[in-house]
Amino acid sequence: MAVAEAEKSKFLVHLAEFKKIVGDAYVFTDEESLDHYAHDETENLHFLPDIVIKPRTAAEISSIMKICNANRIPVTPRGAGTGLSGGALPQLGGVLISFERMNSILEIDERNLQVTVEPGVITEVLQNAVKEKGLFYPPDPSSRGSCFIGGNIAENSGGPKAVKYGVVKDYVLNLEVVLANGEIMWTGANVLKNSTGYNLTQLMVGSEGILGLVTKIVLKLLPHPKHDLLMLVPFKDLEKAGEAVSAIFRAGFTPSALELVEIDALKIVSSFVDSSVVPVTDETAAHLIIEVDGNHPDALMNEIEAIAELLTQYDCGEVFFADDAQQKAELWKLRRRTAEAVKLAGYTIEEDTVVPRAELPALIKGVKELGKQYDFKAVCYGHAGDGNLHIRIRKEGSIYSLNNPEVIPALKALFALVKSLGGTISGEHGIGLIQKEYMDVVFKPGDIEIMRAIKKAFDPNNILNSGKIFDL
Amino acid sequence: MAVAEAEKSKFLVHLAEFKKIVGDAYVFTDEESLDHYAHDETENLHFLPDIVIKPRTAAEISSIMKICNANRIPVTPRGAGTGLSGGALPQLGGVLISFERMNSILEIDERNLQVTVEPGVITEVLQNAVKEKGLFYPPDPSSRGSCFIGGNIAENSGGPKAVKYGVVKDYVLNLEVVLANGEIMWTGANVLKNSTGYNLTQLMVGSEGILGLVTKIVLKLLPHPKHDLLMLVPFKDLEKAGEAVSAIFRAGFTPSALELVEIDALKIVSSFVDSSVVPVTDETAAHLIIEVDGNHPDALMNEIEAIAELLTQYDCGEVFFADDAQQKAELWKLRRRTAEAVKLAGYTIEEDTVVPRAELPALIKGVKELGKQYDFKAVCYGHAGDGNLHIRIRKEGSIYSLNNPEVIPALKALFALVKSLGGTISGEHGIGLIQKEYMDVVFKPGDIEIMRAIKKAFDPNNILNSGKIFDL
Repeated sequence: MAVAEAEKSKFLVHLAEFKKIVGDAYVFTDEESLDHYAHDETENLHFLPDIVIKPRTAAEISSIMKICNANRIPVTPRGAGTGLSGGALPQLGGVLISFERMNSILEIDERNLQVTVEPGVITEVLQNAVKEKGLFYPPDPSSRGSCFIGGNIAENSGGPKAVKYGVVKDYVLNLEVVLANGEIMWTGANVLKNSTGYNLTQLMVGSEGILGLVTKIVLKLLPHPKHDLLMLVPFKDLEKAGEAVSAIFRAGFTPSALELVEIDALKIVSSFVDSSVVPVTDETAAHLIIEVDGNHPDALMNEIEAIAELLTQYDCGEVFFADDAQQKAELWKLRRRTAEAVKLAGYTIEEDTVVPRAELPALIKGVKELGKQYDFKAVCYGHAGDGNLHIRIRKEGSIYSLNNPEVIPALKALFALVKSLGGTISGEHGIGLIQKEYMDVVFKPGDIEIMRAIKKAFDPNNILNSGKIFDL
Repeated sequence: MAVAEAEKSKFLVHLAEFKKIVGDAYVFTDEESLDHYAHDETENLHFLPDIVIKPRTAAEISSIMKICNANRIPVTPRGAGTGLSGGALPQLGGVLISFERMNSILEIDERNLQVTVEPGVITEVLQNAVKEKGLFYPPDPSSRGSCFIGGNIAENSGGPKAVKYGVVKDYVLNLEVVLANGEIMWTGANVLKNSTGYNLTQLMVGSEGILGLVTKIVLKLLPHPKHDLLMLVPFKDLEKAGEAVSAIFRAGFTPSALELVEIDALKIVSSFVDSSVVPVTDETAAHLIIEVDGNHPDALMNEIEAIAELLTQYDCGEVFFADDAQQKAELWKLRRRTAEAVKLAGYTIEEDTVVPRAELPALIKGVKELGKQYDFKAVCYGHAGDGNLHIRIRKEGSIYSLNNPEVIPALKALFALVKSLGGTISGEHGIGLIQKEYMDVVFKPGDIEIMRAIKKAFDPNNILNSGKIFDL
């Protein structure tokens, strides 16, 4: 702690310089402010930054970075603080750069179906703004009402629409980035195809803020689909539900959402939001939520009926079709609030495993077996259509956290299973601070050496979000 | 030349080692073999390698790379030699690694809609193999009958389907790569979503073989669409045709192909393949080729009719609907062979410009103006739906090549125009050897420094396809 105090005073020497860059009103060192930026949605982690800065422009960030780089001050970029892997936590203290003032939608280009935004725009605000013009930005994390586009880019977020429409990386055309040395660059061009040098844009997406600070974003948009249909299908057997997922795609259908919620999770969230829209019976082990969208209502109706018919081969119960917008909204609310409800019920660790989708039954079965072996309870839910299964874990009488050495063997075993199924640790949450311990399950030492070398190429002094994904 | 001879003998010292790794039969130094690998489809460039090696496995390549890395021997990876930017040309001599023996489709995973292939598989062979299972691999370069998947990955190839289905990068899930030091790594996992460390997969796609040698490829597949409709629409005005392209998307349609062919190019190719399927009249300046695909024939018919109706606002002529598979094939043959026909007619340089699609009319207009200013003739064709316009250039009395100092000012002016429209140099052909001179039009020196630093992280001795994209 004494060392940390000494460091702290060292950084505060630069306070006047930072204030000169962004204005006195946007540099914070008071306890309340620091505390506000000390945590995100990741477990119960808490790390105080020394200084919080809220810049307005890339030029300001460039000036801040030049000072930090010259003086080896750790810099942590932060969006809305909704992250689930600790990517925005300032565990080394130093300067925290909050993007909350950089929240303008700069241009909706209807001619080219593109939008240029600043990183502090809330995802849902962006979605609604483009929807008013008949346009569609599909990536749709559960936290869309509060998370920032910048954070979505850092973690390569997904959400339920990813199964048909892809994840954030599939919509990012071009990024303005401030590098560790203060240089401002554009990674590419505002085009749909690009073979001009490396794909620096895609290197930046999902790199969790360790290579640069994204300050402007050009996103591709789609025409908004005119219609959608939603159904809920109960299954008596969890693994059969997993098998059904894969069968839908093999039959040639591409739903716009295909979510799985295990019955224990559904019970918890139904009670949490006081909803009875889904009848919970003892014979049900899990539900699939299936949406199709498009422009031709008849074609959609044929499609959803054909999917329902197909599912009867997998021992499903009675299908519930959402009749109207209100029922759809209620079903989606249940799905969106599952993580929060289950977490409050004591399932404090959320894993973000992803496997090839036909391996879902093997993963689900494996999770239950590991639970017996390592004495934990797990509930599963998530984006089954992508093979992206969130597994929430609870263990009686133990603070179950990824930092807890007690749980490391169980999680190593889980990730080894995921790897053996062709999958990996994180589908959409990132590695951040809390999963880096497990990187060696899926990567060889030489692989991580290459990642370290790329980090050094961008940030030779290792000041930018250092200690996330891997240690240098 | 004396220096090159000295170098050559130095490399030949290792011949026995290479033969031991791959077998005597697969190491070549005879003149005919060397000459065969001295050129690709890029202008008239010709560079002899010193040694050609045809390995069969990643392990063999790993052993070769260890020798080359220790002895600083230049290594050039090569697919089918259909490249248009010189990416596979051994301009430094040394070892050329041909992937032609690594041509197996290793697994078509129908459960997960994935395929694992070696890099030497011909694109069309792969497409046909998965189509037999009802599956679809959309990227579709004009050279699909001969080009290799590995080369498509190196250049991030596109083709006509990209407008709806994306380019190669959108299908690559995971790559096995041999690094310059001989290490063999997988870049990711066989999953549809991945937030586990950097996206090394996407860094590798389009990096033109300067970061590693791809030895196995896991690709995402789609269910094959059951139906498609194709129409050809003549326009009296080239710029109006460009405006129509953007209007189609703004109206909410997403065709599965949207190609533009200028009338001069169409006349040349019609005569080249001896086809009269498209009536060529004096009032026509350009044609759009428009395809829609999907599973519901009625919906498709509605869609193509609605598009045709919309186009009447852009002064189009009589629409020609392709009635059957034969007519469709003939139209596509015309489009696919355009580059070859136009090249033989003296339009020897192909530019691969890409802009936001609504800027197409400005680009087309600008090209014609630059032609007057710099005294060249140009014909335009390409993937208009993506804003990816191929511009073929011809200048009387001059060997018109990108290497010709006479033409550099004209091309710099063209690329500056492209940049000012939000676009960039190459949409799908790559930079390779012949466009690196123009990188500074779209990138700042600091941007290229970052690319160099990444190259050094992967290949500290700069042996792997050195001198492509940029000089180190």
